[in-house]
Parts: sequence; structure tokens; C-alpha cells
Amino acid sequence: MSRLDDVCRQVLAKVTPTREERDRVLRLAGEVIARVSEEAGKLGVKVKPMLVGSMAKDTWISGDQDVDVFMVFPQTYSFEEIGKLGLEIARRVTGGRGEEQYAEHPYLRAEVDGYMFDFVPCFEIEEAAQLRSSVDRTPLHTRYVLSRMDERLRGETRLLKAFMKGVGVYGAELKTGGFSGYLCELLTIKYGSFESVLTAAVSWGSQEVIDIERHYDDPEKARRMFNSPLIVVDPVDPRRNVAAAVTLQRLSEFRAAAMFFLEEPSESFFFPPKLSPLTVDELAAKMRERGTSMIFIEFGTPKLPPDNLWGQLTRSLQSIQKTLEGGGFRVISRDVWSSGEKTVFIFELESRRIPAAKRHLGPPPASPHQRRFIEKHLNAPSTLSGPRVEGDRWVVEVKRKYTEADTLLRDALKNPSGIGLGSYVAEKVSEGFSLYVDEEILSYYSRNREFQEHFTLTITGKPRWLTQRKEE
Amino acid sequence: MSRLDDVCRQVLAKVTPTREERDRVLRLAGEVIARVSEEAGKLGVKVKPMLVGSMAKDTWISGDQDVDVFMVFPQTYSFEEIGKLGLEIARRVTGGRGEEQYAEHPYLRAEVDGYMFDFVPCFEIEEAAQLRSSVDRTPLHTRYVLSRMDERLRGETRLLKAFMKGVGVYGAELKTGGFSGYLCELLTIKYGSFESVLTAAVSWGSQEVIDIERHYDDPEKARRMFNSPLIVVDPVDPRRNVAAAVTLQRLSEFRAAAMFFLEEPSESFFFPPKLSPLTVDELAAKMRERGTSMIFIEFGTPKLPPDNLWGQLTRSLQSIQKTLEGGGFRVISRDVWSSGEKTVFIFELESRRIPAAKRHLGPPPASPHQRRFIEKHLNAPSTLSGPRVEGDRWVVEVKRKYTEADTLLRDALKNPSGIGLGSYVAEKVSEGFSLYVDEEILSYYSRNREFQEHFTLTITGKPRWLTQRKEE
Repeated sequence: MSRLDDVCRQVLAKVTPTREERDRVLRLAGEVIARVSEEAGKLGVKVKPMLVGSMAKDTWISGDQDVDVFMVFPQTYSFEEIGKLGLEIARRVTGGRGEEQYAEHPYLRAEVDGYMFDFVPCFEIEEAAQLRSSVDRTPLHTRYVLSRMDERLRGETRLLKAFMKGVGVYGAELKTGGFSGYLCELLTIKYGSFESVLTAAVSWGSQEVIDIERHYDDPEKARRMFNSPLIVVDPVDPRRNVAAAVTLQRLSEFRAAAMFFLEEPSESFFFPPKLSPLTVDELAAKMRERGTSMIFIEFGTPKLPPDNLWGQLTRSLQSIQKTLEGGGFRVISRDVWSSGEKTVFIFELESRRIPAAKRHLGPPPASPHQRRFIEKHLNAPSTLSGPRVEGDRWVVEVKRKYTEADTLLRDALKNPSGIGLGSYVAEKVSEGFSLYVDEEILSYYSRNREFQEHFTLTITGKPRWLTQRKEE
Repeated sequence: MSRLDDVCRQVLAKVTPTREERDRVLRLAGEVIARVSEEAGKLGVKVKPMLVGSMAKDTWISGDQDVDVFMVFPQTYSFEEIGKLGLEIARRVTGGRGEEQYAEHPYLRAEVDGYMFDFVPCFEIEEAAQLRSSVDRTPLHTRYVLSRMDERLRGETRLLKAFMKGVGVYGAELKTGGFSGYLCELLTIKYGSFESVLTAAVSWGSQEVIDIERHYDDPEKARRMFNSPLIVVDPVDPRRNVAAAVTLQRLSEFRAAAMFFLEEPSESFFFPPKLSPLTVDELAAKMRERGTSMIFIEFGTPKLPPDNLWGQLTRSLQSIQKTLEGGGFRVISRDVWSSGEKTVFIFELESRRIPAAKRHLGPPPASPHQRRFIEKHLNAPSTLSGPRVEGDRWVVEVKRKYTEADTLLRDALKNPSGIGLGSYVAEKVSEGFSLYVDEEILSYYSRNREFQEHFTLTITGKPRWLTQRKEE
């Protein structure tokens, strides 16, 4: 048996739910579904409750606690009605417990006997062309996967999911930008085994097109339609790219890890040991060694569904980078860390201070605009040198308003929506923010245990599966 | 009378040599030429001595002291012979005084009665096609200009020369990269007056072609032939661009000044008042205000003819800039100052210190080179962070060797030809150099009067004709 087979066998033993685990969750799901029917009946609502997702497809990984119960309504109901009725039924089932969430419809997320149940309303459709919201497709996905998978393929899917989790590319939410469970299932169906998926991924080209049901006669058409780093045409809906959420970053990481794993199979790709955070002294030494400047902006985390939150955070992070760069500061890297309470934007700058002198290009010599440019800048208080001719342009050196990045940020964040922060982030920043610069971040780091692991990864800057190879 | 006419009249009165001045130099030149004939006769050499250049063409500016006496040899002599014989005759005329210079032939430069005479050997040719070295053309130039100029045009030429001197674009030597006297004469012939030359220059396009004798039927052909910022086809030689020495910088400065002068005529364009150098305190304040870093490299000036010297200095300055930039330092501006004894390379840097961290791009993820890249950098002592995947490339941050510009320079200048300095400069630098950084340049500045005016212009960075407009 090859090393790879050996590793896979051991991993599979760990990630396959035991019969007891499986029986327990399926029995629980059955009971919950019966309760949904019962409560719907009492309300006189026609609805078919249905177990969907990885529990239904039996591709879940041992220890997963998420159960998706869809409430399938006939098309005779209105869009608003199924949201309202769905919530009402679900609340009755959970005895009023649970948290309301919002996607296209409102839905309920509630813990039942140690499992996290999502109660999601959707419309019954026969084919994707009829869909009214994207969740309507989910039952079709479940049906498709069930029809194409046997026991062996379920195991291969589990291996792929576990690998993706281990190397940090699993999850289609905006925060991760990785591979969804359905995408893992489709890849396994397409290539026939975990190992074959990895082998194929290593040789994927740019904008690889995977079109299992051959909805497109030419991959170029699919590329024009989707224009994503990876394109996996949904077998049940040609208008959808199942890999739409996958960023180039995660795709690249997955392919890099796949190649490495094939060359040198190891369980550590699946189960990376927990990273031990740098001590404060180690962090201080790292920062001295780098010689760069580090700035943290801390503020209260806006209360938003995760994807909305990460959309806002990403957009805001970009606006702040633009503000810094517009002021002449060079951003080496940026990062964001967000817990329920606090969010931290992290910027590493080439330097906290930059020179006051800034080149400002003027019109060509002897152009009609020459006189105005010279009259504006000659002997102006803001002029440091010039105006002078350089090659075929007038040039003047003017004084920058801000020569320190933190001063610029403090001023810019007084008007957070003015620099393009997302509105919810802007609101929170207006309520107050803290700025930590260089050595100040050390005390922040020492006070925030939760933050330490994240920042240790940021500053050492290695994928975790590489971090673990130290002593091999 | 317009303001412009008024200014021109006053300038003309100052720059036109008086009858006495003219008579004196022509008489002197006549005597010298007679002596050349006499000495040539004694040696049995057939040579026609001839007054050429601006004295012969009567386009010189009052106060000019340069007299060009060409010794025109028949083609029966060899290239080497006329060099040797020319020097021999000239030395006999000057009584052995004077300094040997080198262009295509050796020639003699000697003071006679307060004037600086150049005794230059050349071959007699009827037309440019026969020329054996570029000086052979000079008598043809003199003949051409004399045939095309009247008294009025001579005055217009003097105005143009004086204007170009005043705004710093006069002189075809490499150090200046500006307009030669012959070029001024041709421009005046072409446009008919000083004012018309300026007006035309303001509207010159990119690679303007001036072809007085219509040697080319299409300006595009001349552009393909010469490819310079300004193209003035030599009336006596279609293969020569009289403006070949004119850099884009000087051309732009001339055009900018021309436009300004036409809008606001003033004698100060012709006679810029002497700049008063900054005091040491003023310089220190300017440097603090700019917030940049300044580095001087001082070494002994190589003993070379000016054009060779400036070729070497320019090339060396560029190599040092490349060395700095290759090390990650950002050069804001560079400059060179050279006296007979000492030369100073001047670099203004965004910062003297840069962070140790340097991004190094690796292969794409999952490429065949991935493993070697990772094995090389993972846990290497030079690695600061990574390797990690960024988008579609592996990236690692490595430690720079030099984080201070002066340390880099001190090491690099130990092997001056290794970084591409011109060989004569490299030799001098090997004999020893001094490095002055930031506040150290203040004491250098205070000790070197000659240097102060140059550096004041550098740091205020305005054309001198703009400097003078302060209180208007």
C-alpha cells in the first residue's frame, strides 16, 4: 500500500462518522422534520420539510454539527409568505429558541440537542429555470448528488473536504472565499477520487472549466459567461458557477498544497497542529528584524450576517489602503481580524514617516497652461522646490499635508464615510476607534489571546501546512 | 515701440561689440593668421590659415574672448600629418605657449593678448561629402552663414545667443547639452528674427524638423535619420543634425523661457542677476523641511577633456543610481558638480534607511519549480516571512543585505568598476572618496564656496530666469 493510500485510510477512519453518530443525527433530524410537519399542519400550511445538505447526502465529516432542514413550499405562496410562515413554524418547533438570520428569506438557526439546525423556507421547483431564490436550488443539489454517489465516492468526498479544511480553503463564505461542500462533491464526482481531484487540480489551467453535464459545447462560452478563476458549471443550473466564491488566492493555495501533498503525503495537511502564538518578545524581535511599521485600527464589530460583515470589512480595508497610498505611504500588506466584539484592521507600511517633499507634475513646457501652473506654485508657501522643467514636463515639489501615517489616519477616520468605508463600518468607527502604532501593538497583542494566533500566522506568513514541515 | 522691442534694443546695445572691440580682435586675428602663414612657409608646409567661427561671421557677443583659427591643409596630407604639423606651426606662433587639446585631431589652445585662440588643423573640402573629420565642415559653415546674413540678422543672432546664455541653454558641449552658436545662426536665418525664433519655438512639435535647404522632401525621413528631440538639418551636410547635442531638457527649458519672455519681456532673461547662495542655516532649514536624505560622494576630478569628462560623470552617476535602486533605495534626484580639483555626486533619497524586509517573487503555485523555491526559502536564515501564496505566485520576504544607503555605497565603491563607473572615475574613486550624509553635508557646504551657488540652484530647483521673478 502506498504512503498516500495509507494516509488516506487513516484520515478516512477519523473523518467518517461512526454508525452511532450517524444514527443519532438522522434520528434527531427525523424527529425535527416530523415536528415541522405537525406544526405546519396545525397552522393549515402546506409544506414539505426535507433534510438537505451534507447530512442528507451522507458526505459530512465526523464532528460536524450543522443540520439543514428545508421547508419546501408550493409556488402558490408568495415570496413574503414563505419567509413569515417558515419562521413561525420553526419557532414553534424549537419552542421559540434560536436566532433569526437573513439570506434571501429570513430563516431560523437554533440548537437542538447539541446540533445546530438551520430551518430554511424555499419554493418547490422541478428544475432550476423555475427558481425564485437561490436556496430553491438546494433540494435539486441534494437530489443530484445522491443520484451520482456510492459509498466509495462519499468517502473520497470526505477526504477532499477534510483536506480543504486542513489547508484552509474550505468554505464558500466571503470571509474564506473557498470551496463549498457541494463543490467538493462535484469535483469528486467529476474525477472519481480524492487523489484524482488533487492530480487534476495541479494541472488545471487558468480559468479551468469543469462542466460535468456538458451544458456548454465550448469552454470559452462558459468562460465568457462566468469569468472566475475556477468555473464549475452547476449540473442542475447552467447559469450558475458553483465555484463563483473561490478566489484566486484560495484556488492557488489549494493547488500548491495538492502538489505538495501528492509529492509527500502526510496527515498534517488534514490535521494541522495548533499554532503556538509568538510570545511578545518574539513578536518584538520579528518586528525589529523586519524594520517596517505596523498600524492597527481597532473598532467595534458591526452586527451583521457574516457575508455582509466581510463584504463591508474588505471594502473598508481597501479604502483605508487607498487613503494611505494616496497620502504617499507604501502599504506592504494588509489584513483584518474580527471577533464578535472587536475588529482590527492591520496595515504594514514600509515606513510610518515619509518625506514632506512630493513631486507634482505640471503641463508641458510652452503649453498654454504653463503660466497658470507657474503662477500658482512659484513662491507659494506649499512649494518646496521648483517649478522647474524636467524632460518634457513642468514639475514642482510641494509639501505633503501628512508625513506620518497615524496622523493621516486619525484625521481621515474622523470622516469615515468620506474615505469610502462601508456604511456599517463607518458608523462603528464614528463611535470610536483606537490606533496602535509599532511598539504600541505589542501591548495590544499581549492583552488579546484570541488575536494572537491570527497575528502570528499573519506575521510569519506561511500556509499552516508549511509551518508544520519544520522538523521533517 | 513695444516692450519687447524696447528690451531687445537695450540688450543689443550691450551685446554688440563696439567698433574698437571688433577692430582690436580682427586686427589681432589678422596678425596671428599672418604668423601662421609665415611659420608654415618656413616649414615648407602648404596650409591656408583661416578665421572661422563667430568672429569670422561677426555674430559674437561683446566680451567673448574665443578666436578660432583653422589651418586648412590640402588633401594630399595624411590624417596624422595635419595633426602633427598643425600643432608644430601653432606652437611656433605662440612661442611654445598653450595647451594641447584633443578632438578628432590634436589642436592647440593658447592665450594671445588676452584672447583665447584655438589653432585647429583641418582638410580643405569643397563639399561635405568629402569630409574626413567633422572640423572639416567648419569653414563651410562660416562660408554658408556669411552668404546668408546681413547686419540686421547678425544683431538678431546676437540677441538669440544672449537669450540662450541667460536662460542656460547655450553651448553644445556634453555638460550643457544645449544650442551651439551655429545652431543659433541657422535658426535666425530660418525664421528671420530673434522674436520669430522664439514664437516658432513655442509652437514646435515633438521632433520638429528644420530643413532650410530642403535636403529631405519629407520631414519623416529626417526624423527616421536622426531621431533627436530637435532636428536641424545642416545646410552644408544633409547627413548631419546641427541640433544633435540638444537634449530634451534644454529644448524644453528654451521653449518654456521663450513663451514666458514673449508674454513678459524683460532683460533679466538675458542677464540673470547672480544668485546669492543659501546660508548654512537656510540650507539646514530647507533640508529639514523636505524630510529627505542627502548623500554626497566626493572624489578627485579625472583629468580629461570636458566632453569625455562629462560622458564619464554622467555614466557613473547613472550606475550609482542603479546600484542604490537595486538595493531598494528610492532616488528622488541626482546631480553632479565638478571643479578642476574635486567632483561631487549628489543623491537625494526618499530615505537613508529602508526596511530589511524585501519581497521576492517565486514560481506560480503547483508549478514544477514550486518545491525548489519552498525548500530554498523555508526556514532559511535570510527568510523573514513566508513562503506563502499571493494570488497566482509564491512569494517570500527575505532580509536585505543593506538597510542604510551609505553602508551600501561604502561597500559598492570599494569595487567601483564592478558597479559600472566610467573607468577614469573608477580610478579616481579607488584612490579615495568621501561620503557625506544628511547633516554632514552642511559642513561640506560651508567649506566650499565654489560649490554653494551650484547646490543652491539644485535645492531650490528653479530655472534662474524664474528665480528672478520673485518681486515683480
